[in-house]
Amino acid sequence: MVKNLGQQHSILNQYIAEIRDERVQQDSLRFRRNLERIGMFFGYRISETLVYEKKEITTTLGVAEVPVLTDYPVLATILRAGLPLHQGLLNVFDKSENAFISAYRMYHKDGRFSIQIEYSSTPDVEGKVVILSDSMLATGASMVLAYKELLTNGKPKHTHIISILASTEGVEYLKRSLPGSDITLWVGAIDEELTAQAYIVPGLGDAGDLAYGKKL
Amino acid sequence: MVKNLGQQHSILNQYIAEIRDERVQQDSLRFRRNLERIGMFFGYRISETLVYEKKEITTTLGVAEVPVLTDYPVLATILRAGLPLHQGLLNVFDKSENAFISAYRMYHKDGRFSIQIEYSSTPDVEGKVVILSDSMLATGASMVLAYKELLTNGKPKHTHIISILASTEGVEYLKRSLPGSDITLWVGAIDEELTAQAYIVPGLGDAGDLAYGKKL
Amino acid sequence: MVKNLGQQHSILNQYIAEIRDERVQQDSLRFRRNLERIGMFFGYRISETLVYEKKEITTTLGVAEVPVLTDYPVLATILRAGLPLHQGLLNVFDKSENAFISAYRMYHKDGRFSIQIEYSSTPDVEGKVVILSDSMLATGASMVLAYKELLTNGKPKHTHIISILASTEGVEYLKRSLPGSDITLWVGAIDEELTAQAYIVPGLGDAGDLAYGKKL
Amino acid sequence: MVKNLGQQHSILNQYIAEIRDERVQQDSLRFRRNLERIGMFFGYRISETLVYEKKEITTTLGVAEVPVLTDYPVLATILRAGLPLHQGLLNVFDKSENAFISAYRMYHKDGRFSIQIEYSSTPDVEGKVVILSDSMLATGASMVLAYKELLTNGKPKHTHIISILASTEGVEYLKRSLPGSDITLWVGAIDEELTAQAYIVPGLGDAGDLAYGKKL
Repeated sequence: MVKNLGQQHSILNQYIAEIRDERVQQDSLRFRRNLERIGMFFGYRISETLVYEKKEITTTLGVAEVPVLTDYPVLATILRAGLPLHQGLLNVFDKSENAFISAYRMYHKDGRFSIQIEYSSTPDVEGKVVILSDSMLATGASMVLAYKELLTNGKPKHTHIISILASTEGVEYLKRSLPGSDITLWVGAIDEELTAQAYIVPGLGDAGDLAYGKKL
Repeated sequence: MVKNLGQQHSILNQYIAEIRDERVQQDSLRFRRNLERIGMFFGYRISETLVYEKKEITTTLGVAEVPVLTDYPVLATILRAGLPLHQGLLNVFDKSENAFISAYRMYHKDGRFSIQIEYSSTPDVEGKVVILSDSMLATGASMVLAYKELLTNGKPKHTHIISILASTEGVEYLKRSLPGSDITLWVGAIDEELTAQAYIVPGLGDAGDLAYGKKL
Repeated sequence: MVKNLGQQHSILNQYIAEIRDERVQQDSLRFRRNLERIGMFFGYRISETLVYEKKEITTTLGVAEVPVLTDYPVLATILRAGLPLHQGLLNVFDKSENAFISAYRMYHKDGRFSIQIEYSSTPDVEGKVVILSDSMLATGASMVLAYKELLTNGKPKHTHIISILASTEGVEYLKRSLPGSDITLWVGAIDEELTAQAYIVPGLGDAGDLAYGKKL
Repeated sequence: MVKNLGQQHSILNQYIAEIRDERVQQDSLRFRRNLERIGMFFGYRISETLVYEKKEITTTLGVAEVPVLTDYPVLATILRAGLPLHQGLLNVFDKSENAFISAYRMYHKDGRFSIQIEYSSTPDVEGKVVILSDSMLATGASMVLAYKELLTNGKPKHTHIISILASTEGVEYLKRSLPGSDITLWVGAIDEELTAQAYIVPGLGDAGDLAYGKKL
C-alpha cells in the first residue's frame, strides 16, 4: 500500500519545495531542519495507525482517561542521509528503540553497482511495528536490503517505510520485492524519472551531501 | 466549529496523557517539550486547511511543480502559558508574523474576577488567517478577550483557536461569544468540570506554573 | 562589572555577524536560532559563576561524585525581543523559574518617550541569582525598569544582565543607574552610536521585528 | 594535551551527573538531550581555539566589523553512541562537513575482542581542523582506529577528540597511540576503573543503549 502525503494539501509540500529548491537547499541548517520536520509529520500520520489503550491518568485535580500508545514503534534508518528524518521521528516517538543500517553502492568494472549492507545496529523486531526511513527511494535497492537486514532480527508485525521523494521505478521495485500486506510505503512525492546513475529527476540531488557535505 | 483531535487515535493523546500526569509533569523540560510537540501537530492539521498554489521549483536536475503556502498564518498566543505551544506552531510556520497578548485575572472584593488585557504586540491581521493559541480554555474569557484584542488590528479572514484542554463550559462560552463561521476551535480534549476557581477538572493544573514556575 | 564575550574568539562572534548581516537576518528561522544559540552560550558562561555542591550519584556500576548546581537561577526576560534569547537560556537551565516582563515606549507629544512596565509575571526572587536578558541595550531604560520591577518581588543575591548588542551610552546608563556590585552585565558587542530614535548603530535593526515580524 | 572541562565549575557537570544517574538516565529523551547539550558546550569551548578573521558586515544602519570563522571544522563521530553528541556539535557548527564512522568489537574465541572499522563516510580532511567525538573513551581502541580511518582521507591540521567520560587507561592509551602535538583530548570526567569487559566504572553504563535502546 502506498500513501502519498504530498497529494493532500499540508505544510509538508512547502518543506518539500524548499528541500528541492537549488537555492534554498544551500542552507544546510534549513535543509536538515526541513528533513526533521518532515520526519515529525510522517511520524504523526503513522501514529494514527498505531494501537492505543485507555489508561487512567491521575492529575492533581482528578482522574482522566486518556488513550496512550501500547507499544512504541522501532525506528530504523539508513545512514547517513536518513539521519535528519530519523531525528524527526525520534522527536515524535521519544521512547522508541532504534536501528541504524548502512548500505553502500559497490561499483563493478562495467559501471553498474550493487548495494551491500555494511553496518547494522538493530534491536529485536519480532512482532513489533517498525518504521524504516530514508530520504530518497531511487532504485529501491537499499531500502529492500535494509528491510531484509531487519528481518534477520525477527519478523515485524508491520513495517512502515518512509521515503520523502521516490521514483516511480523505485516504488514499483519495492512493491515487487516486498509484496506482503504487512508493509506500507509512505512518500511525500513520486518523481517519474530515474537516471542511469540512479538519480531521481527532478528530485533534489544528493540528500546526504546536502545535509552533511560531500564525502570522498 | 469544534475539532477535537483527541477523539482520533494519534500520538497527540500520548502527550496529553503525559502533561496531565501529576508525576510526569514534574519534569518541566518534558512538559514544555510536550506542549511544543502538541503545537506542531495542531499546526500540521491546521496547515491542511490553508491555501496553496503550485510553483515551479528549480532543482539541480530539473523542474518540479510543488504546492507551496500562499500566505503564512499569523501566530497569536496568550502569555505566558501559551508560549511553548506557540513555539511548536512557529516551528511549523517559520515565516509567520507573530502576536503576543497577555490577559490577567483582576480579582474583585467579592472573590470574582474579570479578565483584562494588559499587553498586546500584534501585527496587522486584516484579511489574514490567524492561529490564536493558549494551552487551556477554562472559562473562555481570556481567549475571547484576546480575540477581540486582535480585531482592533483588522478583521482576519479566518481564525483558528487552539486549546489543548478545554472545559465544556469554556467551549460553550466561546461558541456563544464568537458565533461566526470564520472561527474554528481546535482542542485536544474537553473536560466536563470547571471549578469555581476556574480550574478544569481533571485538567492538568496550571500550565503556566508547570512550564515556567510559580509567580508571585 | 561588564563582560564583553565578543572580545575573545568564539563562535559567538559568527552568530553575531549573522544577526547583524542585513541579508542573513532576513531568514527569521536562522535569526531566532542564532539568538537561541547565543543565549545558550551566555548561559554556559554564566553557569561558570554559579555555586555547585558535590553529590554522590549512583550509576549502574558504582558511585560517582559530581558537582551539581545548588540552585537554578531565575530566568527573566523582556518581551518580545528577549524571547528567543530566553529560550536558549532555558535550554541550558531547564529547571529554572522564569519571569516575563514587558516594557513599552510611551511617546510624548514632543517626540520623546518614556519606558513603562505593562506586564510582569515574576516569581519570588529574594536571595536568588537572576539572569535578566534582552537582545539589545539601547538607552538602557527598559533594562533598568525591568530590573526595578524584579526588585518588587525580592532582592536577588546577584543579577546577571545579558544584552547581545549594547550601545556605549546604554552601558554607561546601566552602570550609573545600577551601581551595586551585585550586578554583572554580559554583552556580545558594544556599538558606539545611538540615534535619536534609540537605534544602536551599526546594530542590527529591530530584533523583535526580525524575530517575530512588524507589529502595528 | 588533555582538557578536562569537568574540573572547572559549569552546568556541564550538572548534565554529567544526570547522564550518570541510574534513575535520571531512564528518560531517554533527557539522556539524549543531555548528550546534545554537552556537545554544544564542548563545541563552544573548542570554538575558542579556532581561527577567525575580521569581516565587514553591512547592517541596515551601518557597517560592523565582526570576527567570523575562517573555516568550519569537520565534525566526525563514531556510531551510534556518538550521534547525540554530534548533533550538539552540528547545532554549533551548522555549516560543517561531517564524517560518520562505525567501529565494532569483534569477539574472539578466548573472549577477547579487537575493534574493526566497518562503516566510514568521510570528507577530505587534508589541512582541516577535525572534531572527532564519541560519548565514552573506554579502552580507547575505537577512537584510535576512527582517527586512523580519518587519516586515510588526508592529514588534518589539528584534531580535537571529545569524550564525555574517559577511563584513565583510555586516556593513557590515546596519549601513547597518538603522541603528536596536533591532537587535543577534551573530556568531561576521567574515571579510574575499567572492567575486563571494557566498562568504565563508575561510568554511566552503555551510552548507545541508553540513547537508542539495546541492540541484538
